[in-house]
Amino acid sequence: MQSAKVKVAIVGATGYTGQELVRLLLRHPQVEVNAVTSRSYVGKKLSDVFPSLRNNTALVCTDTELAALAKNNDFVFLALPHGEAAGSVTKDVLNDCKIIDLGADFRLESAAEYKQWYHLEHANPALIKDAVYGLCELNRDAIAGARLIANPGCYATCSILALAPVLKDALIVPESIVIDAKSGVSGAGRGLTLGSHFNECNETIKAYALASHRHTPEIEQVLSHHSGGTIKLSFTPHLMPMNRGILVTAYATLQDGVDCAKVQAAYLALYAHAQFVRVYDAEADAALPETRWVKGSNYCDIGFRIDQRCNRIIVVAALDNLLKGAAGQAIQNMNIMSGFDESTALEELPIFP
Amino acid sequence: MQSAKVKVAIVGATGYTGQELVRLLLRHPQVEVNAVTSRSYVGKKLSDVFPSLRNNTALVCTDTELAALAKNNDFVFLALPHGEAAGSVTKDVLNDCKIIDLGADFRLESAAEYKQWYHLEHANPALIKDAVYGLCELNRDAIAGARLIANPGCYATCSILALAPVLKDALIVPESIVIDAKSGVSGAGRGLTLGSHFNECNETIKAYALASHRHTPEIEQVLSHHSGGTIKLSFTPHLMPMNRGILVTAYATLQDGVDCAKVQAAYLALYAHAQFVRVYDAEADAALPETRWVKGSNYCDIGFRIDQRCNRIIVVAALDNLLKGAAGQAIQNMNIMSGFDESTALEELPIFP
Amino acid sequence: MQSAKVKVAIVGATGYTGQELVRLLLRHPQVEVNAVTSRSYVGKKLSDVFPSLRNNTALVCTDTELAALAKNNDFVFLALPHGEAAGSVTKDVLNDCKIIDLGADFRLESAAEYKQWYHLEHANPALIKDAVYGLCELNRDAIAGARLIANPGCYATCSILALAPVLKDALIVPESIVIDAKSGVSGAGRGLTLGSHFNECNETIKAYALASHRHTPEIEQVLSHHSGGTIKLSFTPHLMPMNRGILVTAYATLQDGVDCAKVQAAYLALYAHAQFVRVYDAEADAALPETRWVKGSNYCDIGFRIDQRCNRIIVVAALDNLLKGAAGQAIQNMNIMSGFDESTALEELPIFP
Amino acid sequence: MQSAKVKVAIVGATGYTGQELVRLLLRHPQVEVNAVTSRSYVGKKLSDVFPSLRNNTALVCTDTELAALAKNNDFVFLALPHGEAAGSVTKDVLNDCKIIDLGADFRLESAAEYKQWYHLEHANPALIKDAVYGLCELNRDAIAGARLIANPGCYATCSILALAPVLKDALIVPESIVIDAKSGVSGAGRGLTLGSHFNECNETIKAYALASHRHTPEIEQVLSHHSGGTIKLSFTPHLMPMNRGILVTAYATLQDGVDCAKVQAAYLALYAHAQFVRVYDAEADAALPETRWVKGSNYCDIGFRIDQRCNRIIVVAALDNLLKGAAGQAIQNMNIMSGFDESTALEELPIFP
Repeated sequence: MQSAKVKVAIVGATGYTGQELVRLLLRHPQVEVNAVTSRSYVGKKLSDVFPSLRNNTALVCTDTELAALAKNNDFVFLALPHGEAAGSVTKDVLNDCKIIDLGADFRLESAAEYKQWYHLEHANPALIKDAVYGLCELNRDAIAGARLIANPGCYATCSILALAPVLKDALIVPESIVIDAKSGVSGAGRGLTLGSHFNECNETIKAYALASHRHTPEIEQVLSHHSGGTIKLSFTPHLMPMNRGILVTAYATLQDGVDCAKVQAAYLALYAHAQFVRVYDAEADAALPETRWVKGSNYCDIGFRIDQRCNRIIVVAALDNLLKGAAGQAIQNMNIMSGFDESTALEELPIFP
Repeated sequence: MQSAKVKVAIVGATGYTGQELVRLLLRHPQVEVNAVTSRSYVGKKLSDVFPSLRNNTALVCTDTELAALAKNNDFVFLALPHGEAAGSVTKDVLNDCKIIDLGADFRLESAAEYKQWYHLEHANPALIKDAVYGLCELNRDAIAGARLIANPGCYATCSILALAPVLKDALIVPESIVIDAKSGVSGAGRGLTLGSHFNECNETIKAYALASHRHTPEIEQVLSHHSGGTIKLSFTPHLMPMNRGILVTAYATLQDGVDCAKVQAAYLALYAHAQFVRVYDAEADAALPETRWVKGSNYCDIGFRIDQRCNRIIVVAALDNLLKGAAGQAIQNMNIMSGFDESTALEELPIFP
Repeated sequence: MQSAKVKVAIVGATGYTGQELVRLLLRHPQVEVNAVTSRSYVGKKLSDVFPSLRNNTALVCTDTELAALAKNNDFVFLALPHGEAAGSVTKDVLNDCKIIDLGADFRLESAAEYKQWYHLEHANPALIKDAVYGLCELNRDAIAGARLIANPGCYATCSILALAPVLKDALIVPESIVIDAKSGVSGAGRGLTLGSHFNECNETIKAYALASHRHTPEIEQVLSHHSGGTIKLSFTPHLMPMNRGILVTAYATLQDGVDCAKVQAAYLALYAHAQFVRVYDAEADAALPETRWVKGSNYCDIGFRIDQRCNRIIVVAALDNLLKGAAGQAIQNMNIMSGFDESTALEELPIFP
Repeated sequence: MQSAKVKVAIVGATGYTGQELVRLLLRHPQVEVNAVTSRSYVGKKLSDVFPSLRNNTALVCTDTELAALAKNNDFVFLALPHGEAAGSVTKDVLNDCKIIDLGADFRLESAAEYKQWYHLEHANPALIKDAVYGLCELNRDAIAGARLIANPGCYATCSILALAPVLKDALIVPESIVIDAKSGVSGAGRGLTLGSHFNECNETIKAYALASHRHTPEIEQVLSHHSGGTIKLSFTPHLMPMNRGILVTAYATLQDGVDCAKVQAAYLALYAHAQFVRVYDAEADAALPETRWVKGSNYCDIGFRIDQRCNRIIVVAALDNLLKGAAGQAIQNMNIMSGFDESTALEELPIFP
């Protein structure tokens, strides 16, 4: 029945993440998209901004404030630059609605660390402890009861899922971890920067933010909790010419006596009930995750190999940065918080090619 | 209830079109994919050929003959090179099941013309008249009662939908038609040819099959029926570096006294009940169809402009060659033939970016 | 000897065309690049803007005025948005140096037509008649004696070279001409626009500026001179995902009695001494021009086929928009004006893949 | 004078590496390309195989044996699959001409190691010790006197140049080295494989050959010589959608007391006279190498950052796999062996975009 639908609003609906939320939520049978806001397109029909949506929605972009959206909706999704959610989410807002923040403001548990990496004083440090880190596979129970979700970063989701099992079971040497990540350009957002100009990122690849990317402390924080220790690791992101997708290649030295079977068991155990994580076989001739096998879906695929000569594990993980890396996981969180089937509106198979 | 599901088999399931059929049909609530065949991967799990399908199907590729498939299925989809369907579809097969042929063998009404363009004697000319050309928007009633569907070519679907309204209403000079089409590489199939090698088609564009492409007579045949005359036109396809998508730019001289409003009315009238055709506005500053706005969906988007200086119409149409240009339209045909909602399993919104 | 080198300045050196001029001219044995200007990077080393140039130049971007550059250089290349060259080139400037304007301001012979297509009053209509249209293959003698070159547009160069021979020899029906052009993204410049954002132009193609692109009157003007009549034609550009390259597919109805041999002869005759135009054979199985065969070179490749069924010619031409479509042709003009070998600094073979 | 030119033959001229050799050598003022061989195109004009070369060469592909080529040429370049050069290069051949082998057969000093990694018995182990590893920056003197050059692998060149300075000066912990490499598709060659099909590698990235890539022992061998120890490292290549380019991101733990200045000094010292290696500054806001800044040139660009938190160095190096990674370095070797200026025919600046 119509009355059972949850009402949602999307703040920042004309970025790539916001658009992806709209695209998926318009097909969610238990959701009504009630409002979309945008800074640049106020008064414009969303289907004029994204002709892909023609004939499917009459939504018009507004600049409604969060406080008003909160009163009229069950959920508000925030797809904003960092710093903005912290300034506008309040106790009152959280009394009125549940918030799923796709930005970075409530991911780090320490306001000091937030300042160190984001070069910004946190506007609302008291609220941080109310936020639940929305990595569904590791945090499902807390998510179910949360009112404020810090939806994980795209690189962070992929990196954490790739390494959590071997850290939980203490199979690797923590200080040996190196994460080399590769992302498509949509991860950099829809804003106009020289770095996202077609001719500046087509037919090339670059490393960036060496030893300084903001997803680093987020990955370390979650993996530290998971391992019971203090993880410090090197994380290097790369920008490469494709629309969607993140591939993480993670390296770590194995603890003594760890073999392939033990590692495989750790992955299978942790993700036994994770319908969106697919663990690959570890034989030499088995397939490895590639971004094309997850594109357009909410899957995170994980595989690994043991480098016997160097006693090192190499983990490869792939996801679609706009789905499991952002909007898909946000909806997965909403489903868990609402008691819906976790995969509702996320059933689509990866689109290939 | 389970028993209400139609059983389908897909012949040639490991090409791009076959895989797209599987991907979509696995999510069709009234369909059970019962068998998949492949020449190259017999005995292999389909989810090993396409890891995108992991956790979603236990189907194994077989080389079962069509006659046997026909006995055990309600529908058989044929995704085969031209010449092969004509040799294997028989009256007996059609008594046992309905066939949707995604190849070219039953598209042309004249076996002589087939021979002229395909350089091949038609193996089963007597069956041609039983086939219904499966362009849903123009042929819905005949499709509903058919047992053998000739699913249209990708270029043909886009070109015919682009020009049918103005020819039906006699708004253009028939002998002035020029169609310039651009396609992504998946339209060339998954076979190994130098032309599909990444480095041979990336960062370049080429025209090919000038004055000789096999979709030409198919377009002419359907548009001739539609206009009541004999259409001859120039059709030039181009191959360009993208995975999916066809853009057609069609040119024709306007008949005297035809203005923009008349043209717009023709499009709106013919496609008034066509849920998968979206007609764009004709104002100078309105959007025009682009392949990105239809990618991953079954839509065909159409727009046009009048070149006043030259008294010419320029029509722009876009579709996803694997959806509305192949597998999507095949399923649309199956839905019509089965009395299902025409859009079942085709509801997905275009995926952008 | 060093003193024989011509001194050149490049205005607008940090756009794609300007950078291409620098890249090529740094390897020109008879040229000294003396100054580069830029709006956005004043005071910055050019090799910091383009690390590709590291170790090869100490040039620093300045904002020196044209009048000053003119006094200190033999040639000044202008790579500016339209409207700006018209406002700054004067008789005095032309007394001091020769100007090669890569913008549009001096291409159209009629200031009225300029206003109609560029929506701008021409700032210096008296100078228009002094400008020579720098399409080297058609205008070599006038170029040799010019002081102000209107360097042709990229689409215009490709379209004119494609059609000049058949119009000169009156082999086609003038009012039947349709030009369908496809361009890589660098043709749209280095400025930040949503249309050049990677995710907005990757994996898609769009037609734009239908019946209104500014290269249309430029093509018509030159082809009219060449045919002795008044040419009006439809020109439709498309933007597609590649860095460099333009492919033109041009269509026209043949005059009675024209056959393939006559057409081939027309092309070979007009380009007999054009070292940068390569005419392809016309047999059905011969190669056709593709942008990959000219990328990185100053070539314009031309081929054609006759569509017998429709009595139409289809011409395919390809060039690199930054070479023969802009910087390469500008240097070719400078070489002609300076009495250098026409191909100096333009000898590089196309880079493939 | 003409008689001073060295005569060269290219075996395997219709692959990407072979074609690149032709393209560059046709512009080498002291070289005459005398013969080109090919398996697939015997009797065909090279300019028909690669229309980019039209008007620039009359060479026709032959299947002439190496022994005959050796007698008629000063240099023979071998661009062959591994295993083939070992079987055909003999003492007699080396008496007749100098060989530059772009394949892998003479790179490893140990025939046993060759067998272990290539799964093939070396056909000519006695010749291995005559081969000089042609990494010009590290081996110039030996190259000058060699008759048989083992031209380094593309990944190997980039990886070795990235790490040699810090190993030579003992600045890093050898057993901590991890190399994560990303390559364009031309590195996989022009042969027809599903992995090189456009739709299988466009819009995706994959890791491959984990812990088993054949450039691993090559890198280890050279770096071991360079460090005076025995290096074992993890090397993981990735295939990504671009035509040309390799980016290497290398990680290693710093030895105690090593700071940024010491590292920078090591790079500057080792490459002080290496005109094709460009060392970048190490400040946080300085540029880092990207493949676009070297594309089409023989440069290898190198930069690094120190990850203070983890006491790790991250080195980023970029080259064009067909130039410095193959044909360019081969010509650089020939220049050194012939006493020509090392950069002859390699002067071109990187082509951007």
